[in-house]
Amino acid sequence: MNKFLQIALEEAKKSLKEGGIPIGSVLVIDDKIVGRGHNKRVQDGSAILHAEMDCLENAGRLSASDYKKATLYSTLSPCFMCSGAALLYKIPKVVIGENKTFQGPEEHLRSSGVEVEVLDDKECYSLMQNFIKTNPELWNEDIGE
Amino acid sequence: MNKFLQIALEEAKKSLKEGGIPIGSVLVIDDKIVGRGHNKRVQDGSAILHAEMDCLENAGRLSASDYKKATLYSTLSPCFMCSGAALLYKIPKVVIGENKTFQGPEEHLRSSGVEVEVLDDKECYSLMQNFIKTNPELWNEDIGE
Repeated sequence: MNKFLQIALEEAKKSLKEGGIPIGSVLVIDDKIVGRGHNKRVQDGSAILHAEMDCLENAGRLSASDYKKATLYSTLSPCFMCSGAALLYKIPKVVIGENKTFQGPEEHLRSSGVEVEVLDDKECYSLMQNFIKTNPELWNEDIGE
Repeated sequence: MNKFLQIALEEAKKSLKEGGIPIGSVLVIDDKIVGRGHNKRVQDGSAILHAEMDCLENAGRLSASDYKKATLYSTLSPCFMCSGAALLYKIPKVVIGENKTFQGPEEHLRSSGVEVEVLDDKECYSLMQNFIKTNPELWNEDIGE
């Protein structure tokens, strides 16, 4: 598995152990992880801390020139909010573990000039599928359904 | 002035007093404020707490049916991230104090079915203009420039 997706997946599993939604994310600049995070809807009672948002928050206040060299990894296809955060900061590349469970506005990212790579990772997929089977209401809440 | 924009403006002024970026937001459901917030880039060292995000976070975990009745007010036109959050939660209406200082993807919101109202408020505008004159670097950081 891609080494950065592996860390994002570790974050997702950490969230699951905490009783949360198993989605993880890392932000990478110059081949180094500068931020990592996971969904905190359950843990923090948060409406905005999707994995990517938590990751960006944990990376701290970066310069525009840093963001322009960054790649955002997520175990699951980013939603409108998280894709919007990538667009706000002009992050040029997004790498996605899987997009079968949920697909965000990937085409909108691409048409805005963002490189989007989908790795179609089976472990990311099965982690979400198993979670949704037992927690459908939490998952629906997380995507505004 | 619109009574809810007035509260959003109070939030913006609170941020300014705290040394922060003067943008405020409220979330309204059934004519009642269910969340309010302001930009916390400076105060919390946050990369994600734009006013609208802080407001949504302070409103807490709401149901999809609540969001579908909500109106999001902001003193300034919402950026990609905050517009994306509105789309994630299918918030049907966004009311904007002003969009001369900065204009987010309002047309994208409209084409996605969101009602967008721009109030062209002079006080919201002058608050931002005065702030940017003395803090251009903070403002640029906030919009990823």
